Amino acid sequence: MLLYDLVNAKGAHFSPNSWRARLALLHKGLPFEVRDVLFGDIPSLHAGGDKLTIPTIEHGGQLVTDSWAIAQHLDTAFADTPRLIAPGAEGQVLKFFQYWAQTTIHGGIARLILKDLHDSLDPADQAYFRASREKQYKATLEEIQAGREERIDAFRKSLQPLRLALGHGPYICGEQPGYADYLAFGGFMWARVSSPFALLAEDDAVHAWRERCLDLYDGAARREPAA
Amino acid sequence: MLLYDLVNAKGAHFSPNSWRARLALLHKGLPFEVRDVLFGDIPSLHAGGDKLTIPTIEHGGQLVTDSWAIAQHLDTAFADTPRLIAPGAEGQVLKFFQYWAQTTIHGGIARLILKDLHDSLDPADQAYFRASREKQYKATLEEIQAGREERIDAFRKSLQPLRLALGHGPYICGEQPGYADYLAFGGFMWARVSSPFALLAEDDAVHAWRERCLDLYDGAARREPAA
Repeated sequence: MLLYDLVNAKGAHFSPNSWRARLALLHKGLPFEVRDVLFGDIPSLHAGGDKLTIPTIEHGGQLVTDSWAIAQHLDTAFADTPRLIAPGAEGQVLKFFQYWAQTTIHGGIARLILKDLHDSLDPADQAYFRASREKQYKATLEEIQAGREERIDAFRKSLQPLRLALGHGPYICGEQPGYADYLAFGGFMWARVSSPFALLAEDDAVHAWRERCLDLYDGAARREPAA
Repeated sequence: MLLYDLVNAKGAHFSPNSWRARLALLHKGLPFEVRDVLFGDIPSLHAGGDKLTIPTIEHGGQLVTDSWAIAQHLDTAFADTPRLIAPGAEGQVLKFFQYWAQTTIHGGIARLILKDLHDSLDPADQAYFRASREKQYKATLEEIQAGREERIDAFRKSLQPLRLALGHGPYICGEQPGYADYLAFGGFMWARVSSPFALLAEDDAVHAWRERCLDLYDGAARREPAA
């Protein structure tokens, strides 16, 4: 099993969606190797005529791309390992959670760290990253990140449903971590290895949860070089 | 089975959390009667020394209060009917969804309709409602609702994860409605019977979903007198 993952100039793995796939593999106890790539390498990754994105896994000669599809593939291919996504209505509610993480956590964090992230990238990736994100946001990276000290309170407030959910146990999924935890934690890893900006107050239940996630699976996330 | 529920001056049932309980009963096909109450009646509802809130159900001489506890009770007491809350991690993710609905849907809607809601109440309830909400929000009802035309776009944008989830099927839970749908829909019923203010654009996937929810169970929600 091979995981294709992006690295920055320090060799840190920063893709939030790759962290979902990586923790999914660890959750199931599946051994895997990592193939480091730069943004500039992605166009050369393909399966037949299909373009691949990061994360992609290679498993038994098959390439599977997109973190949700990877989780589904692992559930099917390794049916005797702990499940990530329940079938039916429960899986749909988890999918809602993914969209919440995408819009609230990833969307919120992007506006707080995108210039720092650019600066942390391998120099070969910086021009591509700046051009693609400035086109997407219709603003310069400097403008996107400006005024973050005044905006951090609104970001922390937007995490209130997560904070309330963590009143029921150490993890979003309860006593043990599950895929919802990995969906949310990926965004925080993205920030951690890309920017020194403090996203969470130290007395926040979300901060304590993030610390627990950093310790999972022998500290796999904590070992990653922080910004 | 008896459901204690709040009514306004038109006899409409407006409590968002009661709509969760009501749709939970309908989901399971359980017959029930409704006991209408005013806010002023709530202090006289109690079980032994325990204060009750709305919704409360009375089932076989037992009183169960709080919509989540009611759903759990119904799942346990009627184990052969369609389940509302899965055990384990899936139930915890659904609990997160409840908190998202509480903060984003209920919290967002309150600031758009609270003065209208006051005006829709039975005159006997208006003074209590104004005093308690103005204390909670540290602002007058008029101040809370002011400027809603300028704030409606932000509310609609906050529903983006719901909109994305509805890209996978007619209901949040997929092909069939489930408890996540009732958790989210309760807030929209609260608004519908209390205020004429248009919360959703007619071309919004959330609007189409709300229409489907209004039709459920023989149009149980649509029959309620709208504001």
